Amino acid sequence: MSRYWSDHLADLAPYVAGEQPKVADLIKLNTNEHPYGPSPRALDAIRAAATDRLRLYPDNECTALREAIAHHHGVRAGQVFVGNGSDEVLAHIFNGLFRRAGRSLLMPDITYSFYRTYCRLFDIPVDLQPLADDFSLRVTDYTAARQPEPAGIIFANPNAPTGIALPLRDVAAIAEAHPDIPVVVDEAYVDFGGDSAVALLASHPNIIVVHTMSKSRSLAGLRVGYAMAGEEIVQGLQRVKDSFNSYPLDTLAQVGAIAAIQDDAYFRQGCRAIIDAREQLVQQLETLGFEVLPSCANFVFARHPQYDGGELAAALRARAILVRHFKQARIDQFLRITVGTPDDCARLCSTLAEILGKAN
Amino acid sequence: MSRYWSDHLADLAPYVAGEQPKVADLIKLNTNEHPYGPSPRALDAIRAAATDRLRLYPDNECTALREAIAHHHGVRAGQVFVGNGSDEVLAHIFNGLFRRAGRSLLMPDITYSFYRTYCRLFDIPVDLQPLADDFSLRVTDYTAARQPEPAGIIFANPNAPTGIALPLRDVAAIAEAHPDIPVVVDEAYVDFGGDSAVALLASHPNIIVVHTMSKSRSLAGLRVGYAMAGEEIVQGLQRVKDSFNSYPLDTLAQVGAIAAIQDDAYFRQGCRAIIDAREQLVQQLETLGFEVLPSCANFVFARHPQYDGGELAAALRARAILVRHFKQARIDQFLRITVGTPDDCARLCSTLAEILGKAN
Repeated sequence: MSRYWSDHLADLAPYVAGEQPKVADLIKLNTNEHPYGPSPRALDAIRAAATDRLRLYPDNECTALREAIAHHHGVRAGQVFVGNGSDEVLAHIFNGLFRRAGRSLLMPDITYSFYRTYCRLFDIPVDLQPLADDFSLRVTDYTAARQPEPAGIIFANPNAPTGIALPLRDVAAIAEAHPDIPVVVDEAYVDFGGDSAVALLASHPNIIVVHTMSKSRSLAGLRVGYAMAGEEIVQGLQRVKDSFNSYPLDTLAQVGAIAAIQDDAYFRQGCRAIIDAREQLVQQLETLGFEVLPSCANFVFARHPQYDGGELAAALRARAILVRHFKQARIDQFLRITVGTPDDCARLCSTLAEILGKAN
Repeated sequence: MSRYWSDHLADLAPYVAGEQPKVADLIKLNTNEHPYGPSPRALDAIRAAATDRLRLYPDNECTALREAIAHHHGVRAGQVFVGNGSDEVLAHIFNGLFRRAGRSLLMPDITYSFYRTYCRLFDIPVDLQPLADDFSLRVTDYTAARQPEPAGIIFANPNAPTGIALPLRDVAAIAEAHPDIPVVVDEAYVDFGGDSAVALLASHPNIIVVHTMSKSRSLAGLRVGYAMAGEEIVQGLQRVKDSFNSYPLDTLAQVGAIAAIQDDAYFRQGCRAIIDAREQLVQQLETLGFEVLPSCANFVFARHPQYDGGELAAALRARAILVRHFKQARIDQFLRITVGTPDDCARLCSTLAEILGKAN
């Protein structure tokens, strides 16, 4: 530790992102990227915006982008908050809505690991609720009355890294049990088979739905995420953002995201391809003896009763296939495998068969 | 205020950015953008990167960009921290380095107004030092011994919105007077005539130099800023960044910034053009009766002894010319005017002559 670091800095627990390898020829199934490219219209829009106008600041209110997102989801533009990827959106939510003296944030023990990193960054106490043995979320843990009320509630739906979706009626029940606190539903993976809580926004003013364009829109390289909520909550998030960085979305990201969200046919086709490939992959993994959790995401979470998860991940790495393995209690026997192209999935399964010593 | 806001959120004092008008045909001299476009090589690089590879996450370590910046400045890549504009870099510096129990941040009363916004966001007490009557920074205010030591020191050099530069020997004296605390030199405008404290980094391990590509690199639309410091400080800033958002720079911003920083001839030519236009503009404003502070930036800060600053800004706005006016004690009679093209400057001056009732 440097003498120039504050104690606070030394005490952080930074998020560890999945490997972004600098060599080619790897099958990359470790960070839940989309196997196909973004809408060609997005690429056209970006190329058309690469002009001398980049000398000017972007629209700091992202007006056109917020309108495009609002139109897609059937909400008002004033209900949309945009940020540099959903991670930045989440960071502002934690900073602006969850810092409440003497109160803790309620969330699952197994979920997107960045949530705990934000809690360290913003000094937010956390109240972890263990998932059930089948890795589903136990709704009663979140609907029970608590004294004091939590600072807020957050969960991913579908959850990460399990892929398991929570029915919308359960989301509604949680929001109704705590009407005075923000309930954040992180729907990064919802387009691959979950039901979006956007449908609950009109009736549940405490719900905040978070989406990303990194997964189903195939634009991880562009850094665009957004939240949808009541207008007062969105105005609050704008205050946090304008206290941190006025212009987090560059001009190219804004035009690319607008074009992508307007290309609905391309979007639906891409989601469909992933869902189809996922069903096939699940079958193939089960044939190899894996237990696969029921996934509504663009990844599957699977463990083999006879083989160690960490060793399997390393064996795949040695054969040029990247998957994600978490050294965390309860899930350290699992592999999180992104759904790639059918070819990627076939290569993964034949390599696994080889590692497991099974004829293919 | 919404019931979902925290007290902390309600207490923020968001930064107010200069107007980004949505109509064309305005002469825009209000946000210190470069009047000429970025390096054509940057635009080529962006167009070439608008491919299906945008489905993948960017390099979260920005390795190639940090190497290009390091090469330009003659430092090591491990000494470079990059962020989404220098505003995000500054936010991480405040959060990671200036939060120290019972200690205040030392800075000028008149400087980049975002610094005070960050202090509110991160609960950092501030100890404001008034600039001298001529708006220069009084070095002894910063070299004097203090009990307790400040949490840190920050100033812009050249200062904003005055444009006045502090000699490098004074920067060194301040850093030497407080060797155990971070001294941040925000050099957003240094390429237009200041001396960079990068030259002091090897001998002064507590100095952090912050640069942006929004001004002299003509890439405000791309959102790239960086800090240069000792490697331990840079590692600390990485910890903060990785606790907030792993990928703040998208793929297009990284490739555009790399190409821009490598095009040294274009960069020097652009800075030279601004400096020449600034000298002309100062002369013309003085002929109109303005007092103009000595500027080393791409803007001038000027007041007229007979005309109210706010009224002049409004009169220019009514004639389709935007300049910046700050309703702040001591400087509310000034206009901050970005140095545009020679044509922009001529049009500004003829319009001012008309407003002042002088023949042109």
